[in-house]
Amino acid sequence: MAEKTRIGVVGLGSMGAAMAGRLLDQGWPVAVWNRSPAAEEPLLAKGAVRAATPAEAAANGIVLSMVADDAALKSVTTGDAGILSGLPQGGVHVSMSTVSPAIAADLAAAHQAAGVAYLGSPVFGRPPVAGSGQLRIAVSGPAAAKDRVRPVLETLGQAHDFGEAPEAANVVKIGGNFMIAAAIEAMAETFTLLEKHGVSARQAHELYSSSIFAAPVYKLYGGAIVDRAFSPPGFRMPLGLKDVGLAMAAGEKAGVPLPFAAVLRERFIGSIARGRGDLDWSAIALDAAEAAGLKAE
Amino acid sequence: MAEKTRIGVVGLGSMGAAMAGRLLDQGWPVAVWNRSPAAEEPLLAKGAVRAATPAEAAANGIVLSMVADDAALKSVTTGDAGILSGLPQGGVHVSMSTVSPAIAADLAAAHQAAGVAYLGSPVFGRPPVAGSGQLRIAVSGPAAAKDRVRPVLETLGQAHDFGEAPEAANVVKIGGNFMIAAAIEAMAETFTLLEKHGVSARQAHELYSSSIFAAPVYKLYGGAIVDRAFSPPGFRMPLGLKDVGLAMAAGEKAGVPLPFAAVLRERFIGSIARGRGDLDWSAIALDAAEAAGLKAE
Amino acid sequence: MAEKTRIGVVGLGSMGAAMAGRLLDQGWPVAVWNRSPAAEEPLLAKGAVRAATPAEAAANGIVLSMVADDAALKSVTTGDAGILSGLPQGGVHVSMSTVSPAIAADLAAAHQAAGVAYLGSPVFGRPPVAGSGQLRIAVSGPAAAKDRVRPVLETLGQAHDFGEAPEAANVVKIGGNFMIAAAIEAMAETFTLLEKHGVSARQAHELYSSSIFAAPVYKLYGGAIVDRAFSPPGFRMPLGLKDVGLAMAAGEKAGVPLPFAAVLRERFIGSIARGRGDLDWSAIALDAAEAAGLKAE
Amino acid sequence: MAEKTRIGVVGLGSMGAAMAGRLLDQGWPVAVWNRSPAAEEPLLAKGAVRAATPAEAAANGIVLSMVADDAALKSVTTGDAGILSGLPQGGVHVSMSTVSPAIAADLAAAHQAAGVAYLGSPVFGRPPVAGSGQLRIAVSGPAAAKDRVRPVLETLGQAHDFGEAPEAANVVKIGGNFMIAAAIEAMAETFTLLEKHGVSARQAHELYSSSIFAAPVYKLYGGAIVDRAFSPPGFRMPLGLKDVGLAMAAGEKAGVPLPFAAVLRERFIGSIARGRGDLDWSAIALDAAEAAGLKAE
Repeated sequence: MAEKTRIGVVGLGSMGAAMAGRLLDQGWPVAVWNRSPAAEEPLLAKGAVRAATPAEAAANGIVLSMVADDAALKSVTTGDAGILSGLPQGGVHVSMSTVSPAIAADLAAAHQAAGVAYLGSPVFGRPPVAGSGQLRIAVSGPAAAKDRVRPVLETLGQAHDFGEAPEAANVVKIGGNFMIAAAIEAMAETFTLLEKHGVSARQAHELYSSSIFAAPVYKLYGGAIVDRAFSPPGFRMPLGLKDVGLAMAAGEKAGVPLPFAAVLRERFIGSIARGRGDLDWSAIALDAAEAAGLKAE
Repeated sequence: MAEKTRIGVVGLGSMGAAMAGRLLDQGWPVAVWNRSPAAEEPLLAKGAVRAATPAEAAANGIVLSMVADDAALKSVTTGDAGILSGLPQGGVHVSMSTVSPAIAADLAAAHQAAGVAYLGSPVFGRPPVAGSGQLRIAVSGPAAAKDRVRPVLETLGQAHDFGEAPEAANVVKIGGNFMIAAAIEAMAETFTLLEKHGVSARQAHELYSSSIFAAPVYKLYGGAIVDRAFSPPGFRMPLGLKDVGLAMAAGEKAGVPLPFAAVLRERFIGSIARGRGDLDWSAIALDAAEAAGLKAE
Repeated sequence: MAEKTRIGVVGLGSMGAAMAGRLLDQGWPVAVWNRSPAAEEPLLAKGAVRAATPAEAAANGIVLSMVADDAALKSVTTGDAGILSGLPQGGVHVSMSTVSPAIAADLAAAHQAAGVAYLGSPVFGRPPVAGSGQLRIAVSGPAAAKDRVRPVLETLGQAHDFGEAPEAANVVKIGGNFMIAAAIEAMAETFTLLEKHGVSARQAHELYSSSIFAAPVYKLYGGAIVDRAFSPPGFRMPLGLKDVGLAMAAGEKAGVPLPFAAVLRERFIGSIARGRGDLDWSAIALDAAEAAGLKAE
Repeated sequence: MAEKTRIGVVGLGSMGAAMAGRLLDQGWPVAVWNRSPAAEEPLLAKGAVRAATPAEAAANGIVLSMVADDAALKSVTTGDAGILSGLPQGGVHVSMSTVSPAIAADLAAAHQAAGVAYLGSPVFGRPPVAGSGQLRIAVSGPAAAKDRVRPVLETLGQAHDFGEAPEAANVVKIGGNFMIAAAIEAMAETFTLLEKHGVSARQAHELYSSSIFAAPVYKLYGGAIVDRAFSPPGFRMPLGLKDVGLAMAAGEKAGVPLPFAAVLRERFIGSIARGRGDLDWSAIALDAAEAAGLKAE
């Protein structure tokens, strides 16, 4: 079997680190870069090499990026010593962050102009899922680039191909996160209704999430709401606001009213304004409870 | 083994008929009554006996009712020759319709005053699920009555006990239906967003509903939305409006704001006003599409 | 000049009493009835006569009613010794309460069957406005009945004729109250936005309400919000919820989505749940402030 | 009396042109600049002089700008030959456009660093109101600068002083426009409710807008809705979306949930998606009507 290409991983937050770890576990050589180098240590200990810049991480032709938002992606991609300046001709940038369709389209054009490829490749799943190679990955972009990185994606999970438009995969991701937020809000309202009627929300949650709502999103977030277990956060409240904002911006651009997203946005803003910005996004349930006059300790 | 009591079944719409059929299949003697007697025929052919009135159906001490709404339940219960006038002392009325907590509390008091018991026992599941004995049943009311009817409920599915308050089970049911409606709306908005970005909603649905949203409600209704398969309806639009209205009335009574329910209510009203009252309630997706300027054929 | 007919006034809350007082001031003989007779005293002192029942108040052929809601109107109209049993043939019931279009239609039919007339005649204006004869009155119903009571209505204010449909005037009234509530909410949100930016809401209110928003509703309620002057209430919070509920019920019946009304309903429910049920309905501004993390003393 | 300073006016859309015309009428020397010079002609004919650049328009120390949005303001201010490069020390830039508080704060800092002053000075009123010197002007910024330009502002209308924070006046303006949009939506819903009950919206509008809603905003927009008179637009639909978006962005930044704004945003997006982007913003009433199944010709 041919030797494996060294894969660059740019951005070592909990998701990026878990993905790099998975690649190492499965025998891939990996070069890592993070804005704050401390996060690189555990991976270096597992055999990764340090890249001095995003450009250096991209030098072998395949680089994954996983950063916080549009601004961070732009910075590691088109900034000084950014990915674009380091990718060799024919190289592929697998952009796995949750970013706007607009920036995906912009960056894809810049990559194409430079003779390299940009793949929108956002993922569904939390860090442990990444660590076990069971992510779901929405991917879109040039077919040849997708072929080239397929073995890498398959190491991380299961890829779903959404065609050639670079921003397509991001719309899928944004839509999915919006649906998660909507499920959280629906549970938040329902569980408050139950509690104010003196009915056990915990028990109703068991019924719902073992039958018609037997899906991970209900089990995970319903459990968090019932247990008031919002800290440490799996996904911080401001990220929830960011992602619903991405959905609404995408809706504005494409001409799509999103009334549920509009409710969610106001809920996140209110929750943050009331001091819950450090909690998990499912803590909007506390605002739903307080709005009904319940104490949210 | 002791001989089984004859069970009365009042209300033979598709759910009531499926439940009566299941009981017969499992060896229970059954007496049936329906406002329009034609619906009784297939069950008589399977061995049921005809009751001339709801009271007669209740004469052996256990009667199940499954009717359209509060008014129908009141009519078969407290009307002339209604269930209350037929139940012998110690008898149990298993009320399986989706009705308001308010009427459940009222009827429970009337039953108690008459020396019989009222159990709120709404169900989750469609007719085929009832036919195979796999319903989920939320049940609340007096403990002794629940003990007495347990074998009957276990023939129909799995019972979840929500305590003694007669209306508790109804709040669980109403909350569940509201959460279903919310999941439909979230998909409707998301799929419209995808389509207007030129992304395949069908494919995104496959991704969502095979991973974080891998639950029956997403598979069933997401499929219907993607296929524009809203007729024949599994659950008619006006029933959706009714159930969201029940949630909102329960919210008003208990002091619980329900912003998602408020959005849903307006969506159902608009969909019915625009001529979709005969479609499945998931056809609110057509309104979401039209609101974005898409043609909804 | 012909002697004036004695006018019956049923319901002596602050509005009913102010209207009866105005009629007395302008030389009309008046017979008064109230559920709790204490409210009759000041009017008896001004020359009114006491009616023992609503029927007796209606005995001279023209009776005005001003009561709290549908149930109260039904009680004084079709109950024992109600208006319907006292009105002589050709008599006119001027129904001035804010009630549902549905009950207006029902009662109009009952009056017609009894050979008398029902006029929907809800009013805009507070008690002092009634006392000075400057109400705006929306009126609908049979033309002959409107002709007959015109001098009475003109004593109370200015009548606007909305045709023969008995419920038409009620829809106008309900719509107007909904618009007032919407103006309150719009100010509540805007003033909170200003305050959290450190801008004087009081000063902005002066600008708005002296120019493009130079209308009584903005001056009155904007001033209340800026001054946090919600008690004593001019119009209690639960009446606001009732009236928005009437708009939504009318919308459901006629097939009209009302997204602003839906937001308002949840706001009123939340405000009442959080202990503000005894304040003026403009106190929903406190909830808007709290939702943004402001202290609402 | 001292000779008047020549005033620069940058941006000659209908509002900017009306303001320049008013200044000329009242004897002020005026220098005009517009991106597309054709708009300068009528003012040159009235005695204005042409400035080759925004910088040149600013050369005498007082310059008013009235442009479309944040981007345009930034371009004429900090771009090549922009206002900032032309204003002499101590000069004042009177920024009258409806822009975001964020850009106001940014530009104010840039002005201060350059030894000149930025005044946020957005206006309420349409072009004819500007032409007759009856605008309402919200103004905020350094006191000395406000003193210096007071005679200019008083020529245009009445100034309301909102203190020294540069962005304060913009928040007042944004809040006012949001309140106008809310009044439009409230009328749109109410008039649809009336029409579907067979009641004359025109007549109800006369009642409302001659009594408790006797304000210009109700008369103007209520009349437009009743007459379906949305073209030519006084204020285009996309500007409505822009301004509600500014309110929401300001709300997000300051932590203020704005549920009415959220409803309005979705309404504007839907209206534009359905082909109404060239109509007046009050044409959201057509969407409200269509949502209820009415034909909106």
